[in-house]
Parts: sequence; structure tokens; C-alpha cells
Amino acid sequence: MRYCQSWLAGRYDPSGKESYPLFRAEVPGNVQKDWWEASEPGDIMYGSSVKKLDITEGWHWIYKTRLDFSRRPGERVFFVAEGIDYIFDILLGGEKIYSHEGMFTKTELDITDRAETGTELCVVIHPHPKTPGPHREARGEANQSCKPPMCYGWDWNPRLLISGIWKPAYIETRDSGFISSCEPFYTLSGDLRSADVRFETVCGSDVCYTVKDMEGNTVYSGYDPEFRLDDIRLWWCSGCGTPYLYTWTAKSESDEKSGTIGFRKIRLVRNTGTMGEPYGFPKSRYAAAVTVELNGVRIFAKGSNWVNPELFTGTVTAERYEELIKAAADCNMNIFRLWGGSGINKDEFYDLCDRYGIMLWQEFMLSCNNYEDTPGYMAVLEQEAGAIIRHLRRHPSIILWCGGNELFNGWSGMDDQSHALRLLNKLCYELDYDRPFFPTSPMPGMAHGGYTFINRENGDDVFAEFIKAHQTAYTEFGVPCIAPLENIQRIIPENELFPIEKTDAWITHHGFGAWGDQRWLCLDDIEHYFGKQPDLPAVIEKSQWLQAVGYKAIFEEARRQWPYCSMAINWCFCEPWITAANNTPISWPLKLKPSYFAIRDSLRPVVASARIGRFDWKPGDSFKTELWMLNDSGETVSDRITASLVIGDETFTLLTWETGDIEPRGNKRGPAAEIVLPSVKAEEMTLRITASSDDRSSEYRLRYYGG
Amino acid sequence: MRYCQSWLAGRYDPSGKESYPLFRAEVPGNVQKDWWEASEPGDIMYGSSVKKLDITEGWHWIYKTRLDFSRRPGERVFFVAEGIDYIFDILLGGEKIYSHEGMFTKTELDITDRAETGTELCVVIHPHPKTPGPHREARGEANQSCKPPMCYGWDWNPRLLISGIWKPAYIETRDSGFISSCEPFYTLSGDLRSADVRFETVCGSDVCYTVKDMEGNTVYSGYDPEFRLDDIRLWWCSGCGTPYLYTWTAKSESDEKSGTIGFRKIRLVRNTGTMGEPYGFPKSRYAAAVTVELNGVRIFAKGSNWVNPELFTGTVTAERYEELIKAAADCNMNIFRLWGGSGINKDEFYDLCDRYGIMLWQEFMLSCNNYEDTPGYMAVLEQEAGAIIRHLRRHPSIILWCGGNELFNGWSGMDDQSHALRLLNKLCYELDYDRPFFPTSPMPGMAHGGYTFINRENGDDVFAEFIKAHQTAYTEFGVPCIAPLENIQRIIPENELFPIEKTDAWITHHGFGAWGDQRWLCLDDIEHYFGKQPDLPAVIEKSQWLQAVGYKAIFEEARRQWPYCSMAINWCFCEPWITAANNTPISWPLKLKPSYFAIRDSLRPVVASARIGRFDWKPGDSFKTELWMLNDSGETVSDRITASLVIGDETFTLLTWETGDIEPRGNKRGPAAEIVLPSVKAEEMTLRITASSDDRSSEYRLRYYGG
Repeated sequence: MRYCQSWLAGRYDPSGKESYPLFRAEVPGNVQKDWWEASEPGDIMYGSSVKKLDITEGWHWIYKTRLDFSRRPGERVFFVAEGIDYIFDILLGGEKIYSHEGMFTKTELDITDRAETGTELCVVIHPHPKTPGPHREARGEANQSCKPPMCYGWDWNPRLLISGIWKPAYIETRDSGFISSCEPFYTLSGDLRSADVRFETVCGSDVCYTVKDMEGNTVYSGYDPEFRLDDIRLWWCSGCGTPYLYTWTAKSESDEKSGTIGFRKIRLVRNTGTMGEPYGFPKSRYAAAVTVELNGVRIFAKGSNWVNPELFTGTVTAERYEELIKAAADCNMNIFRLWGGSGINKDEFYDLCDRYGIMLWQEFMLSCNNYEDTPGYMAVLEQEAGAIIRHLRRHPSIILWCGGNELFNGWSGMDDQSHALRLLNKLCYELDYDRPFFPTSPMPGMAHGGYTFINRENGDDVFAEFIKAHQTAYTEFGVPCIAPLENIQRIIPENELFPIEKTDAWITHHGFGAWGDQRWLCLDDIEHYFGKQPDLPAVIEKSQWLQAVGYKAIFEEARRQWPYCSMAINWCFCEPWITAANNTPISWPLKLKPSYFAIRDSLRPVVASARIGRFDWKPGDSFKTELWMLNDSGETVSDRITASLVIGDETFTLLTWETGDIEPRGNKRGPAAEIVLPSVKAEEMTLRITASSDDRSSEYRLRYYGG
Repeated sequence: MRYCQSWLAGRYDPSGKESYPLFRAEVPGNVQKDWWEASEPGDIMYGSSVKKLDITEGWHWIYKTRLDFSRRPGERVFFVAEGIDYIFDILLGGEKIYSHEGMFTKTELDITDRAETGTELCVVIHPHPKTPGPHREARGEANQSCKPPMCYGWDWNPRLLISGIWKPAYIETRDSGFISSCEPFYTLSGDLRSADVRFETVCGSDVCYTVKDMEGNTVYSGYDPEFRLDDIRLWWCSGCGTPYLYTWTAKSESDEKSGTIGFRKIRLVRNTGTMGEPYGFPKSRYAAAVTVELNGVRIFAKGSNWVNPELFTGTVTAERYEELIKAAADCNMNIFRLWGGSGINKDEFYDLCDRYGIMLWQEFMLSCNNYEDTPGYMAVLEQEAGAIIRHLRRHPSIILWCGGNELFNGWSGMDDQSHALRLLNKLCYELDYDRPFFPTSPMPGMAHGGYTFINRENGDDVFAEFIKAHQTAYTEFGVPCIAPLENIQRIIPENELFPIEKTDAWITHHGFGAWGDQRWLCLDDIEHYFGKQPDLPAVIEKSQWLQAVGYKAIFEEARRQWPYCSMAINWCFCEPWITAANNTPISWPLKLKPSYFAIRDSLRPVVASARIGRFDWKPGDSFKTELWMLNDSGETVSDRITASLVIGDETFTLLTWETGDIEPRGNKRGPAAEIVLPSVKAEEMTLRITASSDDRSSEYRLRYYGG
């Protein structure tokens, strides 16, 4: 039996000299959020308000409760906290009974002999570790910590060293029938039609297992924890089939646990066309195998990088997760890369991704730092990673473990010898043998970036940049965009809205200086194409235009490069608060930018697409475009495609293409159309690729200097 | 007390129906060698004689001995075999008492209660495993085996599935003072001046430890297995200092074990100049860190790939190892890459490399195959790799574990997900935490090849090819050469010596068809530069010329690329028998080809070197050369360099260069000299780079079409 407790919280003086007022604490939650609400009733999003939390960085905090539960004879009493962020002690009746570092390991304390209703239980939270020394970026302070480094400040997340009881915590009474763990494993037959299921259960009494299919039919019921299921239905990712889940129940004389099983076989296989590369001698290694093979089918993985959807990760609800996950599935995405820098999500997230068929590339909490192998760090990492793997490995949606972000790049400074990554390899091997593992992203052949519409090193726009690119997987790339007007109005003081200048509010919200001077507003790129803008709505419109057509260009180019390229995962999907601008197609909390709809179009199973050399054109230019049919579906398709160019009121039909058959999960390159651009009084032109099946048509809105 | 036994051996019929004659068996050795000597008294090197062993491939073999030992009261009796190749049973008094797969794990059987003098002990050797199925190369049959795959046939080793008791085997009587294991470990202080030493010992009685330095002074003596040594001397590789070794003794009441300790700190660090690459977006991972840092000093690793020095690896002696290792040290080499395909050497090899200061890159026995993770294979691999790591980790010379050869290239088909390599990573992490590990070679940034003087894909010679190359480490590259005349005369029937044609003898000895039609004789390259040759000595002279100047070009070019490039390791050093031609500078057993001396010159600590664009020149060509001083020494050097060109009887002085100071372990690029080549009646020309310090001068013998 579980008994939730009521908690108070407050600042805490470890020397005992000072005492501070307590306030109501939300559990699960973050104590900084509670403190904010108790003391600073205002919009944390507004202006630079968030910086008012800076003073709390060095503080200790305390959570207090007077226990309230009832216990039957023979039962034992446990305090269970599924996650406490990040270094903490637990005090029972004033006595310290436990100390711990790490927010991803479950705490389970047998307090039978010391606790009764009314006993005081406290959780004392220590300040976060900060590695001393000069750090180019604040994140360097996180390089000996298993706390997600984004909390130390990132280019889309303000520095906010949150802590607290971030996952459920409760008193649990347990008798001999208590099921302390129950986990299903399975082995699929070679033809993927049968599964040998095996439950590993820890319980003092007999346990009866029941498995039901999605229609509610019982497919197994019995006391034997090992059994075979025939004629199983497989779990598929979104767009490839039903993410089929069976439901299991384990029942003892006094307890019941339940969960789901998704049967699926996952491998990463060599990308088509990588054999032989690099050509000639001296010859280095081949690209890493990174094509997702799900249940024997090679899949183009299309999706987005997921970061924390709220500043206060302890407060995220299942509803919040679901609205975002649903938005991804609706956007024709089938994968999230769970970028390591923002840590591990709550349990509900993984359950929802299982249900929605969103594949997950789960990274550990290392990002852009050199995590040295000091004994203290390695011990916490081993404990945390082990807990994470054991806790999450049951989810069919997770297709890959990854050590963390960009660790084999110079700005991180780790490499193949780094013990932290070798440890993670070892743990994943031991605890989750069949699931693929990468030490980091990008691996050889894969790539990250760019992150702006114009590459300032060579002047290329994203159209040109990705046509030249030749990578097996684009696992980060971004085009930035300013937030919608109403969100901007919420975060920027009215008198700073326009003209946009480098004020604290714009900077705090990552409009300037987040990555170089002009990121993420990129007013330089807007001015480059459109000149100075007269007002904020005009800036927003241009910014949205660039992001939408930019993402359309990249996602479709990546699909054109299939099967050599097998992944397109943009940076990033959601944001934890309102940024003034960033690379997401969604502004907090769920305001869809135009790019969201552009991406949704580009990721449809079947798309009539055009390869366009660049974004900006003028009269007299030779405009050339290559027609493509992109087919991610499992069906053979064919269509009749017409390409036309609309400039002002005039429409120029370029050509018509009878595609013939296009094989399942295959593309077809069509003819190229070319036209010398006429002089028309217009500031833009639209390339229309019209398919007979209307849901396959595409439009590309391009800059045209015809004014 | 150890008692060696006398062994007979013979073919064995597991059904018991047939019995075959026995012959004297050499232990350690290989039973196929004994069989050969007992039944085919002839030169195995001659012609295609080696193929007479083919018929033995499917045979079982038996070793027999009648035990001969004496045992004192209270002693236990063990049969110990340090290595039996490859699948075997042990029978005692006719009863099978043990079965095993794997040649690198020590067998230790307590036979006290069943053995006395006169008891028959037999070792039954099974045929080697051969994976069925179509294999492009015979080596594919080895892809589920921990038997070194070169035995299945390689392009320099004939197929020869040898087996037998290849390491010492004996009866050992043990009392309570027997030291069953004793291994020293150490931790160096940050300044590398002190070592905390710790012995891990298994013994039933007290053990006294003594450590002496190389001068014979006792630096520790006592019963405490943990102690600190101050003012230690470090182990250095050849060319960088003394490979200093301490000697330890562990003494119990009745036993004594001894060994050496070399104190040294080894890391692989990022190559200078790799930061940032690849430039621009989308950006993949950076090159792997592959610069050897020994005791805090970055070292250019220069050496060769080591393969088995004899066909019958069980017969290799310490003397045989030493003459080759000494030849490498004399050649100014400081590293061997112990190519995985030829397995692990006997203990004496590693002791000698410790003594000579030859650093070792030790690979596991995987090469050019896809070793799938079947349960049977993985169990043997785990056992064998674990045994190898535990047995060898005490050697300071070993600086790197590596999973095997070219496993991340398409012709092998393994990749980052391969469980066999993830297992090796895990085992090295667990058993030998501080020593670097690579899953394979080449890693990103590093490269293998080419292997011929002319790259037939683009027509470049090795001069041009390596000037264009931009890699962090060249860990295989080769220029082939025919064997010296007397070796050719031993292997090729007299009537086939000239003209050279594709007869069985030339093919068997890898002259033709070893890798493409023309390898390794490469008569096509010889004819390309020199036309048809009149006789065998002329072929040999031209072949030796190309190999010598080719290796000189590559090794010096790799050194010029320091510190971006940090390794030059040619393919390969020695050969197990007389090949008609291959890439080694040494023909079996120790006949030094001219390339040996060219390499020795190129690898001197300080070399006056020239970058030359290509090998072949004609009158009227603009001959341009860039002068360099290459300094691998720890000293600042300077010199006065004169470049001159000798064509026929004429000498053309090109320029003189006062180098000024050249920093320790640094190079200096000097001026370039250019001359329009005159017309002289000559078929070659020599570029002389003369230093004031004569031991730094260089000569390059180039083709000149002045005839």
C-alpha cells in the first residue's frame, strides 16, 4: 500500500544557525519552483526575471513531512523516492539515515523500526556540484556530475540549477506478497512470429501472470514465469504499422504489478552505398552502421531532438508529454533523439512513446564536456547509468543507447579512450545486450549542424549546403526562427519590442549571444535577404518563412539521399520556456510555428519533392529544379507530377512527369526542369509540385528579387 | 617441482577402428611438424611441398605420455599445459577428464588421486572448426573461431591448420607453499617519481618480496605486498631512453616466482592539428586520439606489423624472437603492431620487447571476418581474451589492446554494434583499466594501405600518394619486393626460375594471385619503369630498388606530417616462411633486403630528408624537392644541409641550407630546390642530401630516363 505525504520545504542552513520559513512543496516537483511561487509571485518568463533564482544556487534546501500511514501486522514500512535531484541526505526523526548523489536512482529505505505516523522525515538537498576552474562555458562546471548539464545553462535553457523530489515519493507498506520487482524479457523466433517470454520477479509468494492483447483477449495466464506466445503481433514505429502493445499483470496474494510488452527486433545495419568508402588508399574505417532495421525492415528515421519541455522538469505531467508526443506523431515523425544534456524523462514519457510508436534514441546525461574518470564521478555514473538501463530497457520504443552528445568532438575533448564512455558500453552490454549502443553522436559518417539558414563560413544557404553534404545520418541540424508574437509579448517588455536591440530580455531569452553574436534571432540573415524590416510582425513573418522553407529543404534533401542517408533528426523539437528565437518548430508550450507544418509536409510517407539549388533568385537567373518522388511507405506508388512556378500573378508550367512505379521505401529521381526567370514585379516566387494525389503535392516559397 | 614428459604423437581415430603409427613429438611444438618430419623428409619450403599437409586437415591427433614424476607426501599433482592448439580432450588412464576449446588459456588439472608414475596421459586434438558456407576467402571459415585466422591461409602464409601442444606442458607437484599466482600492479605518483606497488599473490604460506633495480641493488624486501618505491627509473621505448626494468622475486617456504616491472605511464592523446576537422557543417566526429604519450612525452611511433615468424608457431624459440626484435631495434623502430590475424606470441616474445624497448600494439585474434555473436563463439572469446589480458598485462611494452584488424571495413563487415568487439572493450576495461583500447584498426583518421609501388587506380606512385595523404596514423602500408636470390633458389624449381611464369611454386609462395593477379611479384610495376628484365638477378635488383626507395619515401613523408601524423607502421616486418615476394624488409628467416637499410636510415632520430614528388624523371622535367630536417630526438639540433643531384658522372649542386635550431621532437621545413633536368646518358639519378653530421645524410635513388 502506498501513502502519499504532504510536504513543506524551505531553505536550509546546514550549520543549524539560521532557520528559514517553510512553504508548501509540490511532490513531484522542484523546490525552486515552490520557492518562486511562495516568494516571487510573477511570471518567470518575463524579461530577465529568471535571474532572480540565481541567488539560490548555493543554498541547501529541506523537504519536511510528518509521516502519515497505517501498517498492518507483519508489514514492513519503506520510504520510497523514485528520484531526488541531486545530492541529498534523508533524516528520520532528526537522524541522518541515508546520503546519496544522483537523481536517476530509486531510493528505497526500510524504516519499519524507526517510523510511525507522526515521525518527521526530512530530505536535505545539497547545492549542485560545480567543478572549479576556468570554463569557457558554464556547462564545464558540470563535467564531474551526473546532473543534466543543460541546467548549468545552454543556448536555449537559462542557467537554472533546479533540484528537489522530482519523481513520486511515498511511504509503502509491504507484506510477504509484495512484488518488489517484476520485469518481462523475451526472445523472438527467427521468423518473428513467436516469442519466448520470461518474467524475472522478486516476490515472497507465488505470482500469477496474465498477458492480454490490445483487443483484451487473454493470451496467457498461469504461474509459470516462462512461456511461449505464438502468432504474436509486432510493435512498429509510427508510419510503419501499429505500435502493438500487450498488457501483462503479475498478481501475488496481496500485490499486483502491471505493464506492457512490445515485441520487436531492432538492429542498426550498414547504410547502403557506404561499402568501399573512403575509396583508394590510404583507407580509413567505413562509416558506422546507422540504418534502423525494425522487424527486418529498413526504415528512414525522421524526427527531432527532444529536450526538457519545461524549466522545472519535476513538474512535467503526462498530459504535457502527450501533447508534444502527439504533435510529433502528427508531424509524421517516427523518432526522437533524447539529447543527453537534458537528462532522462519521467516514466510516463516512455510509456507514451511506446504507445505512439515514436522510436527513442536515448542518451546518457553527458554533453559537450570532458567527463574525466575520477573515482567519485565514475562511481556515480555507474550507479546512475545502471539504474537508468534497468529501469527503461523494457520499453520497445527505445532503439539505441548513446553515451552522450558530441563527446568525440574537440569542444568536448573525450575520445575512444574515455573511461566514462567505455563504462557505459560495458553496462549496456551487460544489462541490455541486444540494444544497439553508440558512445556518442555523431559517429563516423554521421554529422551535426549547421544551425542557421546561411552558413557564414562560405555563404551557402541550407539548400546548397545539404545538396553538397554526403552523410549517413543528419542527427542534428537547425534553422532558427523567432517566437510567435504573443509569446514575444509575454517575455519582452513592451518598450523593447521594436526595434529589436540587445537588451537583457532579448539576451536572456537567447535572441542574441546564445551562439555567436546574432543567434538565434539571426537578424543578419533576415536583413541579408529582405533588408531592414519595418515592424516586429514583419520580422516574425520573414523569420518564419526562412525556417519553414529551410527545414523543408533539409528534410527532403536528407530523404533524397536515402538509402545512403538513413536519418534526419532536426535540432530540436520543443523548448523548456519561451525562447526569443531558436531552432524548434514549436514555441513553448505548444505554439506551432509555420515550420511545423512544413516539416509535416516534408515527412509525409509519399511526397512529390523538388531539389532546388538555393533560396534566392532574380530575373534572368537560370532556375533549375530536379523532381523527385520520395516514398517511405511500404507500398508501390506512382503518380503524375506537374511542376509550375508562380511569380506574382503569373504561373509558368515547367513540366509534367509520369513517375511510373516507385518501389516501397524507395525514391525515384525524375526529370529536371529549367527556366530562365522572367522579370515580374514580385518579391517572392512559389515552386508548386502538384501530384494527382493531392496529399502528395508540395510548395516551396522562394525569394525573388523582382521588385 | 616441474617434471617435463616425453611425448609420442600420431594420427588418431576417434571411432577407435583405426590405429596409426606414433612418432616422437616435440613439446612445445606442432604435431603437423612432427608428422612431416616423421613421414615426409623433405624441405617444406620447396615448390608446393607444403600442400602435402592438406590431407591432414580433417584428422584427429593424439599426444601420449607415460607420466614420470616423483611426489613428496602432502604434495598435490597437477598436469599443466600453458597452451594447446586448439580443440582438445585430456585422457588420464584412458578416461576423458577434460575438454576444452582455445589455445591461449592455460590448462591446470589436479590429477593427484588418479595419477602416478607410469599412468598414461593423452591429449586428443580435434580438427579445427570451419564455418560452413560459401566464403569468398578461405579465412571466412575462421569466423567462429579463436584460432588465428592466418592459419586458414593468407596472402603471405600458406593454408596450414597447425595444432598441438604449442607452449610448455609438464607435471607439477605443489605443496602448501606453492605460489599459484603472483602479479605486481602499481600506481605512479603524478610526477612519475614514485610508485605504489601492490602484489596480488595466491599462496598458502607467507611470501617475501624482493625488488632489485637493473644494477642489482635491492630497493625493497619484505613480507608486505604493498609498498612505495621512490626515485624510480621509468621504462622508455627504444630511442627515447632506457627500457628500465626492475626484477622482483616472491619467495614462499617452498616456492619462488620472479619477473620484471617496468614503470611507465601510457596514454593515447589527440593528434596535434586534428582540432576542428572536419571543418564546416554538417560536421562528423573528430579523428581518434592516436598519439602515443609515454611518461608525458609525445612520441612518433615508427615500426612495423609483426606476424608469426614461423609456419609452425609452436616451434618458435626465444632465440628466433630475439634476432628479429633486435633487428627492429637496430632499424630504429620503437613499435610493433601485433597484427591480430596471427595470434598471440609466446611469453619470451613479450619479455624481449620489454627489454628492447619495443612498444607493442597487441591485437586480439580477429581479422578481416565478421565474427558473429553466437553463444558458443562468445563464450570461447571471453575465456580466451580474459586469459590473454591477465597473462600479458604485466608487460610495460604493451601500450594498446586492439580488437583486431580492419573489422570496421566492409570486407570484414563488423561495426560499432558488433558484440564481440564490445565484449573485448568491456574485458579490457575490467581487467586492464589504464591501458588504451581500440576496437580495430584503422580508427577514424587513421588508415591502411596502399600495398604496391604504383596505385593502379590512379597511377600515383608511393611518393605522390603519401604527399597527398592526410591521416593521423599510417598503421599499414607496404611496398613489395621479391626474395633474395638464394631464398628464391630454395623455393622455386631450377627450371622455373626464369623467365618467371605463373607456376605452382611461384603461386604457392605468393608471387602471383596472392592479392590480385600480379601480387606480390609486381612484375607489372617493374616492367612499367624498367621494361622487360633479362634475368632473375636483374628482376631482383629492380624490385629491391623500388621497395627500398618506396619505403624511404613513405616513412619520411609520414614523419614530415608529424605531429598531425603520429605513427608509421609498415606492412609487415617478418614472414613465416620464404615468400617469393611480399612487403617485408626481411626475407625468412633473417635475410635483410636493401629496404631494411633504407628504413633504418629513414628512422634515424635525426634525418636530413627530401620531399620528392615522384619516382621517375626525364630530361627537361622540372625536378623540385623540398628539404626537411626530421628530429625525433629529445635534443635541439641544427645542421648545414647540401642538396645535390648525381646523374651519371655529373653532380649538380642544388642548394645549401643552414637549418638553425630545430626543436626536440619537431621537424623543420627548409627551402625547396628546383632544377630543369639536363640530358645525361644515365638510367638513374641520385638525390643526395648531405648533412655536416654525416649520420644524418640521405640518398634517394630515382629512375631517370636519360638513356
